[in-house]
Amino acid sequence: MSTPKKNLNIGMVGYGFMGRAHSNAWRKVTNFFDVPYQPVLKAACARDAVKVQAFADQWGYASVETDWRKLVARRDIDAIDICVPNDLHLEIAVAAAKAGKMILCEKPIARNTAEGLKMCKAVEKAGVLNTVWYNYRRVPAVTLAKNLVAEGRLGKIFHYRANFLQDWTISPDLPQGGTGLWRLDVKAAGSGVTGDLLAHCIDTAIWINGPIKSVSAMTETFIKQRKHTLTGKVEKVGIDDACAFLARFENGALAIFESTRYARGHKAEYTFEINGENASIAWNLHDLHRLQYFNHADESIVRGWRNIHVSDGDQPYMKAWWVPGLQIGYEHSFVHQVADFLEAAAQGKSASPTFREALETTKVCDAVLASAASGRWVTVA
Amino acid sequence: MSTPKKNLNIGMVGYGFMGRAHSNAWRKVTNFFDVPYQPVLKAACARDAVKVQAFADQWGYASVETDWRKLVARRDIDAIDICVPNDLHLEIAVAAAKAGKMILCEKPIARNTAEGLKMCKAVEKAGVLNTVWYNYRRVPAVTLAKNLVAEGRLGKIFHYRANFLQDWTISPDLPQGGTGLWRLDVKAAGSGVTGDLLAHCIDTAIWINGPIKSVSAMTETFIKQRKHTLTGKVEKVGIDDACAFLARFENGALAIFESTRYARGHKAEYTFEINGENASIAWNLHDLHRLQYFNHADESIVRGWRNIHVSDGDQPYMKAWWVPGLQIGYEHSFVHQVADFLEAAAQGKSASPTFREALETTKVCDAVLASAASGRWVTVA
Amino acid sequence: MSTPKKNLNIGMVGYGFMGRAHSNAWRKVTNFFDVPYQPVLKAACARDAVKVQAFADQWGYASVETDWRKLVARRDIDAIDICVPNDLHLEIAVAAAKAGKMILCEKPIARNTAEGLKMCKAVEKAGVLNTVWYNYRRVPAVTLAKNLVAEGRLGKIFHYRANFLQDWTISPDLPQGGTGLWRLDVKAAGSGVTGDLLAHCIDTAIWINGPIKSVSAMTETFIKQRKHTLTGKVEKVGIDDACAFLARFENGALAIFESTRYARGHKAEYTFEINGENASIAWNLHDLHRLQYFNHADESIVRGWRNIHVSDGDQPYMKAWWVPGLQIGYEHSFVHQVADFLEAAAQGKSASPTFREALETTKVCDAVLASAASGRWVTVA
Amino acid sequence: MSTPKKNLNIGMVGYGFMGRAHSNAWRKVTNFFDVPYQPVLKAACARDAVKVQAFADQWGYASVETDWRKLVARRDIDAIDICVPNDLHLEIAVAAAKAGKMILCEKPIARNTAEGLKMCKAVEKAGVLNTVWYNYRRVPAVTLAKNLVAEGRLGKIFHYRANFLQDWTISPDLPQGGTGLWRLDVKAAGSGVTGDLLAHCIDTAIWINGPIKSVSAMTETFIKQRKHTLTGKVEKVGIDDACAFLARFENGALAIFESTRYARGHKAEYTFEINGENASIAWNLHDLHRLQYFNHADESIVRGWRNIHVSDGDQPYMKAWWVPGLQIGYEHSFVHQVADFLEAAAQGKSASPTFREALETTKVCDAVLASAASGRWVTVA
Repeated sequence: MSTPKKNLNIGMVGYGFMGRAHSNAWRKVTNFFDVPYQPVLKAACARDAVKVQAFADQWGYASVETDWRKLVARRDIDAIDICVPNDLHLEIAVAAAKAGKMILCEKPIARNTAEGLKMCKAVEKAGVLNTVWYNYRRVPAVTLAKNLVAEGRLGKIFHYRANFLQDWTISPDLPQGGTGLWRLDVKAAGSGVTGDLLAHCIDTAIWINGPIKSVSAMTETFIKQRKHTLTGKVEKVGIDDACAFLARFENGALAIFESTRYARGHKAEYTFEINGENASIAWNLHDLHRLQYFNHADESIVRGWRNIHVSDGDQPYMKAWWVPGLQIGYEHSFVHQVADFLEAAAQGKSASPTFREALETTKVCDAVLASAASGRWVTVA
Repeated sequence: MSTPKKNLNIGMVGYGFMGRAHSNAWRKVTNFFDVPYQPVLKAACARDAVKVQAFADQWGYASVETDWRKLVARRDIDAIDICVPNDLHLEIAVAAAKAGKMILCEKPIARNTAEGLKMCKAVEKAGVLNTVWYNYRRVPAVTLAKNLVAEGRLGKIFHYRANFLQDWTISPDLPQGGTGLWRLDVKAAGSGVTGDLLAHCIDTAIWINGPIKSVSAMTETFIKQRKHTLTGKVEKVGIDDACAFLARFENGALAIFESTRYARGHKAEYTFEINGENASIAWNLHDLHRLQYFNHADESIVRGWRNIHVSDGDQPYMKAWWVPGLQIGYEHSFVHQVADFLEAAAQGKSASPTFREALETTKVCDAVLASAASGRWVTVA
Repeated sequence: MSTPKKNLNIGMVGYGFMGRAHSNAWRKVTNFFDVPYQPVLKAACARDAVKVQAFADQWGYASVETDWRKLVARRDIDAIDICVPNDLHLEIAVAAAKAGKMILCEKPIARNTAEGLKMCKAVEKAGVLNTVWYNYRRVPAVTLAKNLVAEGRLGKIFHYRANFLQDWTISPDLPQGGTGLWRLDVKAAGSGVTGDLLAHCIDTAIWINGPIKSVSAMTETFIKQRKHTLTGKVEKVGIDDACAFLARFENGALAIFESTRYARGHKAEYTFEINGENASIAWNLHDLHRLQYFNHADESIVRGWRNIHVSDGDQPYMKAWWVPGLQIGYEHSFVHQVADFLEAAAQGKSASPTFREALETTKVCDAVLASAASGRWVTVA
Repeated sequence: MSTPKKNLNIGMVGYGFMGRAHSNAWRKVTNFFDVPYQPVLKAACARDAVKVQAFADQWGYASVETDWRKLVARRDIDAIDICVPNDLHLEIAVAAAKAGKMILCEKPIARNTAEGLKMCKAVEKAGVLNTVWYNYRRVPAVTLAKNLVAEGRLGKIFHYRANFLQDWTISPDLPQGGTGLWRLDVKAAGSGVTGDLLAHCIDTAIWINGPIKSVSAMTETFIKQRKHTLTGKVEKVGIDDACAFLARFENGALAIFESTRYARGHKAEYTFEINGENASIAWNLHDLHRLQYFNHADESIVRGWRNIHVSDGDQPYMKAWWVPGLQIGYEHSFVHQVADFLEAAAQGKSASPTFREALETTKVCDAVLASAASGRWVTVA
């Protein structure tokens, strides 16, 4: 079962929310999955020496760096895990690629397609393994949904709808910028809910239902000005607080997507539903261990949406965990991504989504923002 | 479609909550069901002449009586519908039977088995059609549940559990006795939740799963004294506020039943669940148009409880109503019972549950109360 | 309680699904509501003499007509209830207005704004009472939602989203045109899901959240050709099978609306959700007796969506029905509209939505279809 | 934040399902909680040398033992974690106590009260810290429920009901005894669902609602004989497949409890509900991150069960994890127990439930089994 593993030395850039989620995944993976590598938390990197040392102590990183360039230059690092704000992805990823490191980059790949494209070219030129952390693909219920569609169980797909609703920025007193709040700062984030939340919806949608052809979008910034924590001044808010768009897939399906941080009662409610000729599927991040499935082939008098508790050993990834009925949580999606990354790496392949695949999502995001700006339908590049 | 119908003249005794529910059923049935009789609201009867006239006006009864004996004696009445407190069932039913009337009696049949038995003998001796209004049998989702079990879809039944939870008597200021409150007066009602609520649960259980063999029960009266509206004095409360019991069915299934009027957050939450070797079923009166169904034969990765919206034309009684997706409500169960009663009557038969069938439920209630009093298992007579 | 009532003589045009729903409402209203008129089912009208007589027999109409012009001309008719396909609304309504009748017209008011405007002018010129049957307003949970917003409980409204999902036209074998299928025939219906289903969503939205300013829409006709039952030939399908649109309300709220008849697993699933600064509300026609309510002012550790079982006497319309916990169904919304119509009529007023108010919904529908055709944002006229 | 920690050396006995759950907890705790000790996985112990070495490799135990006596004798072990079948708890715990080790024992404490009492005396005589892994107490939603009751929010408690339903032993082909199946072997387990599942329900109930005074129970063994994996022969099944009991709490509340492994559609569905004068609470292990809460003090027209997504930083244990809306899973309850154990240990205290506290649950189990055998109410010793 547990064959001797080759070490894979990880260099982590960033120690925020995602730094924790990824570190946990690196630490846990071999306890639950028989993967071909043993990840080693070799170094954590961030500008604040005190804070990064505390982070390293808490997670067991063997060393720290305060300059990502030094981290990238270290010979003893095999893979760079990028967990910093979006505006830093490009520079770090390009340097890491040049240094021949494997790269795991937080989503979205970058602030926009132009940046993302440079990153794709860099990793492809360097021939390094790469992936983007669209972790929700690896929620077992979502993977199961993907599999059901891929097997043709839904038949022709008519409709796709996805929402990502939050309510944490409704207060006008919330500042923009700085730790935990860079998502409200357009310079750091690139966009608001579009890149942060809709990117997840779009990645899942493309993965399951294929390319999106065109979009018509609207965006809104409800709170026009917020204090900036870095400048201390009240500044214009540059991000989109809310975004909704109509879309057409290449396969003919219609779609609506919506995201906002102004939907009271929704903490992180990412939902999607897919309607096909023969069956439908629905999922909700707030109960991520469940999948709703309607099979029109069921006998009519006892036909209904099946509420599937995705916790059995024959369901994606679940054999590794507990027993039927015992649910997993949010963080497990990252463990799954690490497991898949390590499996693929042993075969010299990148785990999906690669930088190139993740770029498709950012192209849609760019089309969405362009459509919102122009008031017209925009074809995805 | 609508063949000429023979009139069936109804004499209603009582004008309370059930008087309204039954009157509505008599009035509506021919609009939706092609039944062989046209019910005619011939007379309403109650002691208060003013109130019964108002009731007759509101529902279209052609005449009123203030003495049920006169009503029973009228030649132009075909069927007596008994909607008065339990302590009056026996006398009225026996007189109506002697007068050769069809009898429809509100549940429970009587305050206890002894009374109920006399009623059974009276209708059987007189050879009159009879039924007891255990209306929940005719909620389409419940009838569907019955059918699924009868078809053997669940296989061997292991477990039955039913609850009927309410919260309307928690306040100690609520008096006992009188209009709308006779259910708290043991003389009028015979018992508390056992005869009022558990009787429904037991009727459904016997109907679907066969006879109950033995029980072990406990009861409680949380509020020991309440003002009596008839005497004006604070008097001992004689009813059971809550009752729970273990049971064994003749088919080997184990059961638990519980009812209370002290369950905050539950208005009229009658629920049951049946677990069989191959499938399970669950239902809830608060969403009476839905049935939950788990079929173990479903493919394992997409197996889950099916949430069936019972509103299609091929589901019990639903062809008569609207279109799929449009739900019916509480009162429809009474319309269904009237429709079935009229269909059976045209064939000279009583619609189930007959007095004799309904007596089985009261026998279980008596066993439950006896067990609670003795602290021992009691075999159902 | 039940004061002597003045008769109000109803002339019904049409005997289809809506003819039944309305007839039931007229018959039931005085049993449950103390309204100032006694509706009398005076005459039913339809071209097929045999069928209309059967309908009249089933519902108790005193007479029949086979030409709506004769019905409109009858002196003994006070109100005309229009339950025929949309293409007939204009002509009948204008004639009825000229004849001085009260008019109750099924929704949508007409196939388009131009027709609807003529109808508005006719009733306004004639000074006759008028209303359009947007019945879902009178589902108690929906009325409660309206009241909560009107009381300012949600604060500033950020988002509105509504779906009306069905799945009954997925089969390409389903023909268009004729009884029950005129909704697929663009000549009779005017449009597909936009006028049939989205009209409901839009009416509710305007009623609760005020005027819609502009829209961006897409429509699709998945099945391009269907056999026409009237011609017997396979003909082009002219209706929209699916429609989705983005919208902006005048109050600044963003909205998405979607309707389709190709969403497997949804029979008649009309849902809406409203997100305000302080609270949110959600509702679903498949469980129409429930309202979901999230109140941000609730103490944080016990804050959650409240699942309200709208069946108490202090909730809209419910005092008239049963007791807490006992749900009503679809048809009750029509009874409520009749009750409100009669109350308003006694005061010489039209019940909302009047023709003029209902025209606003059709204006939005027209803008939606224009936007789908042009691919541009369209301002509501 | 992360103060230098003292090591706490763990010796694990057993490597089955619970061995994994506990190991994960020991490994993760310092990543998420700022506890005063650093657990060190010092040694894993089991009879099979190959398997225990594989287990040690997978979880990072520094050494292995094949005789628990040797493990207990090791000077470098601070705490013994007992994860073996129930029949071994007594001997190991007594030896560990004599050796002065802290002891963490899987639930139930033992096969019966007599064994458990010896264990209590041993740890109390030795003065060693001790706890029993009733992990569900530390599910945040359950802890929140406990807190709400402790704060008096529910007022007087009228009703408690709990179920633990499974369906994994319905097949008669499933053998008894051996790895993973010792729970079906009465010699190893002591009892069936009573000690395995109801023990959880009882522990939670006592913790939240105080002592249970008396019980009336029934048990059933549906499959009378199963092949024994150790003997290879078909042998009588000695465990209870199902058990239900009525109970009275010392505080006057009535209760029903039920557990079975024959409830189709339920994988590990532990549910409880508590009804108090002012509020009610309900919880379900299949959605363990949610708590249902009904507060009667809410304004009546918007009163309903609140569906609380327990994932905010002000809810029990959740500050340590992710952000609002991101759920945790089953395994986290063990991490919480380790965190609490370490906090208490630093203060020289045992974390609840201690052996002595856990013994109360086993006393109730014994009373339940005695009642089922005698058919009488039994007072809890």
